[in-house]
Amino acid sequence: MTKRVYNFYAGPATLPPSVLKRAKDELLDFAGTGMSLMEISHRSKEYDAMHKEASSLVKELMGLPEEYRVLWLQGGASSQFYMVPVNLQVKGKPMEYVNTGTWSKKAVKEAGFYGEVKVVASSEDEKFSYIPKDIVLSDDAAFAHITGNNTIYGTEFHEWPKATSSVPLVCDMSSNMMDKVVDPKQFGVIYAGAQKNIGPAGVTLVIVRGDLLDRVPENTPTMQKWKTHADKDSLFNTGPCWAIYMCKLSLEYLKNLGGIPEIEKRNRKKAKILYDVIDKSGGFYRGHARSDSRSLMNVTFNLPTPELEEKCVKEALERGLVGLKGHRSVGGMRASIYNAMSLEGVEMLVGFLKEFQENNQ
Amino acid sequence: MTKRVYNFYAGPATLPPSVLKRAKDELLDFAGTGMSLMEISHRSKEYDAMHKEASSLVKELMGLPEEYRVLWLQGGASSQFYMVPVNLQVKGKPMEYVNTGTWSKKAVKEAGFYGEVKVVASSEDEKFSYIPKDIVLSDDAAFAHITGNNTIYGTEFHEWPKATSSVPLVCDMSSNMMDKVVDPKQFGVIYAGAQKNIGPAGVTLVIVRGDLLDRVPENTPTMQKWKTHADKDSLFNTGPCWAIYMCKLSLEYLKNLGGIPEIEKRNRKKAKILYDVIDKSGGFYRGHARSDSRSLMNVTFNLPTPELEEKCVKEALERGLVGLKGHRSVGGMRASIYNAMSLEGVEMLVGFLKEFQENNQ
Repeated sequence: MTKRVYNFYAGPATLPPSVLKRAKDELLDFAGTGMSLMEISHRSKEYDAMHKEASSLVKELMGLPEEYRVLWLQGGASSQFYMVPVNLQVKGKPMEYVNTGTWSKKAVKEAGFYGEVKVVASSEDEKFSYIPKDIVLSDDAAFAHITGNNTIYGTEFHEWPKATSSVPLVCDMSSNMMDKVVDPKQFGVIYAGAQKNIGPAGVTLVIVRGDLLDRVPENTPTMQKWKTHADKDSLFNTGPCWAIYMCKLSLEYLKNLGGIPEIEKRNRKKAKILYDVIDKSGGFYRGHARSDSRSLMNVTFNLPTPELEEKCVKEALERGLVGLKGHRSVGGMRASIYNAMSLEGVEMLVGFLKEFQENNQ
Repeated sequence: MTKRVYNFYAGPATLPPSVLKRAKDELLDFAGTGMSLMEISHRSKEYDAMHKEASSLVKELMGLPEEYRVLWLQGGASSQFYMVPVNLQVKGKPMEYVNTGTWSKKAVKEAGFYGEVKVVASSEDEKFSYIPKDIVLSDDAAFAHITGNNTIYGTEFHEWPKATSSVPLVCDMSSNMMDKVVDPKQFGVIYAGAQKNIGPAGVTLVIVRGDLLDRVPENTPTMQKWKTHADKDSLFNTGPCWAIYMCKLSLEYLKNLGGIPEIEKRNRKKAKILYDVIDKSGGFYRGHARSDSRSLMNVTFNLPTPELEEKCVKEALERGLVGLKGHRSVGGMRASIYNAMSLEGVEMLVGFLKEFQENNQ
C-alpha cells in the first residue's frame, strides 16, 4: 500500500483515518447483517437506526433548537442554489445576496430565475480578498443569503451579518460547516455539500427552521420541496445511503474529539501556525485574503513568481503534501485544512514552507 | 463476521461479492494515491480516469451509438420525474405516459407541473398485474414515457412500444437496467437509479440522445438541465464520486462475465426456476403478474393466507434468505433477483419454497 499522504485538496478532501478504517472494517458486513451497508434496504431497521443517528449527531453537535429540521439531500450546494429560492421566495419581494466570490455569484445567478435579486454587498472590487463589513439587510426581503466561507479566495465571515427578525438568513456553509461554534438561531437555513468538512461527496446537509418549510407553493415538483424531505425524515425516496453513513462516522469522530468547541480550538491553532509562516516570511509568501477576513479552512497565498509557485507545489508533492495548487481564479497556492486535517499535517507543511523559502529566496 | 446472506431486497440490493471485496481492498488507498477515493479531488487525474472509464463501460456494454451521452446525476429516478419534462417538454404539445404502477403514477404527477399529460395506456384496472399491449403512441407528443420494469408489481415490458420517429421514447429502467439486451436506438432517453441493478444508492444514470439536449429553455436553473451535465461530462459540480466508482466496479464485473448477453441468459435461468416453483405449486404460490408480463427482476407472489406469508418470510430469514416481504401495495412476497444475485442464491430460495410448501400445505 502507498504511504498515506497529507491531503490539502479543497474538496473532496481528507477524512479522518479512523473513520476510513471503520468504513473498511464494516464494508462487507454492516451491523451484523451479513450485508454491506450499500446492499441493505433504506427501509430496514439497521439502516434506519444509522440514518437517525446521523441526524441526531448534527442536532447535538450544533446545538440545534427543537424547531430545526435536518435533511440529507442530493445534488450538492449547486442544487440548493435553486432550491433556496424555490422554497423561500415570496412573490413581489426581493432576494438579498452578499457576493463574496465564485460560489456566491453562482447562487445569485440561480436565484435570478425565480425573481428579483439585490446584491446588498460585494467584495468583487478587490478580487474577493475580503468580507464586506457593516452589511445592512433590509426587513422586506424574502430572505438574505451569504456564503460562510469562500473556498477559492480563502475568506470567511468572522462576524455574521445581523438578520432582521422577519427575514431568514440563509448560509452556504459548504466549506466551513462545523469549523467553529455558531449560534444556529441566527440562521433560517444552513446548507453544505458534505465533501469538505463533514464527509464524502454525494450528500448535502440542509438545516431548515421548521416554519420555513410551509412557504413553498403547492404546485412545486415534489423533489424540489424541502418539506417533502422533512416530512419523511429524508426517506421520501432512496437517499445517498453510503455518503450519509460516512457523514455519521465523521460526526461521531468529531463528537469523540470533544465536539465543535474542541475542533474550533484545533482549527484556530492549525490556521495560526500557517498564517504565521506567511506573515513572517518578509513578503516571500503573500496571503490573498485580508487578515480581518482570513479563512480558518482555506489558506490562500502567492509566491514571488509563478515559476516558484509551480516549484513549490511540485516539491511539496514529493514530500507527500498533496493538493496545494491554488484555484485558477487566484493562482498561487491553497492549503485546505478542514476539520479532518491533523495538526501534524499542518506542521509538516509549515516546516516544508520555511525550508522552501530558505532555499529559494 | 456474520455469514453472508442471500439478499432479495428490492433496492438498495445485493452487489457482487468480488466488487465489494475490491472496494474494501482499495478503500484506504485508491490507485496508489495514498488516499481513499472519497478523499481525492474530482478534478484529479486519478479520479478522472475512473470517471471516464465508468461512462465508457456503459457505452460499451449497451452498445450506445456515438450520439448518445452518458450522465451520472444525483437525486434518484424521482428527480428525473421532473427533469424529463423540464428538458423535453414542448410548449403546446402533450406528454404521453403509460401507467404501469406506482412509479409511473409518480412520474405522471410530476409531469403535470409542466403541462398537459395524456395517459395513453394503463393497467390500473387489474392492480397493475400486466403490461398493456398494442400501445399506440401519437406523433405529435413532446415525448412518450414508460416504466421498463415495475419493482412493486413484478411486471416488465417484454416488447417495447413502437416510438414514432419524431417523438422520443423515454424509459425509466431503474429496476431493469442492463437486465437483457436492448437496442438503445429505440429510446431518446433511458434513466435509472443505480441502487437496483448497477451499483449502490446515490447516483442516477441518465442516457440521452444528443439532439435532445438542446430542447431545454434557456431560463432553466443550471442544475436542472441535462445539457449542463453533458457539456461537462458530469463534472459541472462535485458528483457522487463513491457511488460512480461502485458502478464502475459493477460494470467491470458485468463485462468480465460476458456482458449483457451473458447476464440476460443467467437472468432468464434464475427467473425460470423461480416462476416454475410458482407454476408447479398447484396454486399454493400464486404469481401476481400475468405470465406474459412477468419481470425478470422482481418475482411477486402470494400464499394462501397472510399468516402463511408471514411465516414464510420469517423462516426464509432464518435460512439467510433476506428481504422477501412483498411491498405493502401487493402484500405477499417478492424476490428481487437483480443482475448481482447468483443462480446459487435463487436455487437456495427455490429449495426453501418447495420445502415450505410441503410442510405447510
